[in-house]
Amino acid sequence: MAAQAYAEWSIQAYLDKLAGADPEPGGGSVAALTGALAAGLVTMVTALTLGKEKYASVQDAMSEIEEQAEKLRGELAAFITADAEAYAQVAAAMKLPRDNDILKKERNQVLQAALKGAAAVPLQIAEAAAAVARLSSPAAEKGNPNAVSDAGVAVLLAEAAAQSAALNVRINLAWIEDPDYKKDAWARIEAVLSETAGLREAVLALTYSKI
Amino acid sequence: MAAQAYAEWSIQAYLDKLAGADPEPGGGSVAALTGALAAGLVTMVTALTLGKEKYASVQDAMSEIEEQAEKLRGELAAFITADAEAYAQVAAAMKLPRDNDILKKERNQVLQAALKGAAAVPLQIAEAAAAVARLSSPAAEKGNPNAVSDAGVAVLLAEAAAQSAALNVRINLAWIEDPDYKKDAWARIEAVLSETAGLREAVLALTYSKI
Repeated sequence: MAAQAYAEWSIQAYLDKLAGADPEPGGGSVAALTGALAAGLVTMVTALTLGKEKYASVQDAMSEIEEQAEKLRGELAAFITADAEAYAQVAAAMKLPRDNDILKKERNQVLQAALKGAAAVPLQIAEAAAAVARLSSPAAEKGNPNAVSDAGVAVLLAEAAAQSAALNVRINLAWIEDPDYKKDAWARIEAVLSETAGLREAVLALTYSKI
Repeated sequence: MAAQAYAEWSIQAYLDKLAGADPEPGGGSVAALTGALAAGLVTMVTALTLGKEKYASVQDAMSEIEEQAEKLRGELAAFITADAEAYAQVAAAMKLPRDNDILKKERNQVLQAALKGAAAVPLQIAEAAAAVARLSSPAAEKGNPNAVSDAGVAVLLAEAAAQSAALNVRINLAWIEDPDYKKDAWARIEAVLSETAGLREAVLALTYSKI
């Protein structure tokens, strides 16, 4: 694991480590970064709308969108590193000794807890990405029309981030034994995927209608 | 425009500038970054497959995928900055004087050339992203199955990058007067969008079947 948060790395250094044989950062970390980019684009739309007389009637709505988008951007940027850290816990648990039944049982307990931690991060990434996708809709509808394509890119990236996070939830669920946890986690993912698919279609259509 | 290529910026600094009121970097630059992340994930799959006896039969195929993915990653990383630069040319042309008919005509010529430049960059981003999506398919099929979800995230991001780039082609085409250029450019985009939509569905289904 990196001593420094990935958000402090240069884009090039992050891309290079991603492309390497180290399993982290991987798809989950990238899902978080993609979601953060989507949130940044929503804020860009509000920034190009706020303080302009031409858009006086939507100033309050834009302020509220901006506040939420910036909160989500902060959370998603932190998940770029948190996902890699959660993966490291699973990898460490896998290396625990299993020489006898007691050790095997202990190892499995630690591993199951680590797997739940590793599923929880992309689950939160998916839900944060869905929240960003939700914000892209009023941003495209009411924001500065010169920036509407940025709201369109925001919904595309938020949906892709949610789908990417879902894959990473699924990998961890495959090894988790607790049936209630599995059922609940996947139900949350299905809700996210259904909502973001609808938002992608609607916001993209709105964007094309305005450019 | 930044004096330094955006790839050298920290992720946090890029996200902060993206979220600001400056129109660049915007959706086009982010599309390039998203495509570069997808290419990096394809290479990650090859890196986790190459040199392992277990996957001896696919070493040549993986080497070829890696070579192509790395070339595309380099191109897409450069487009993160190139898109913003092409936008700056359009913004500069817009500021040219139009006090009389001669100046108006000169301004329009410069602007039309700048708009074609600004459409050409996302067009190339879209085609490079489609090439990455194409590579994600054999990566998911033949690569180390422990990394199959990374191939799945790669196709999701490559498709989103292509769709995002398409929006940015469209904005510029709206102001371009040359009908042949417009027709040809949009035909290329339609081919990309059709191909990447099919790849997204196929590679995602393959990924879920393996995890």
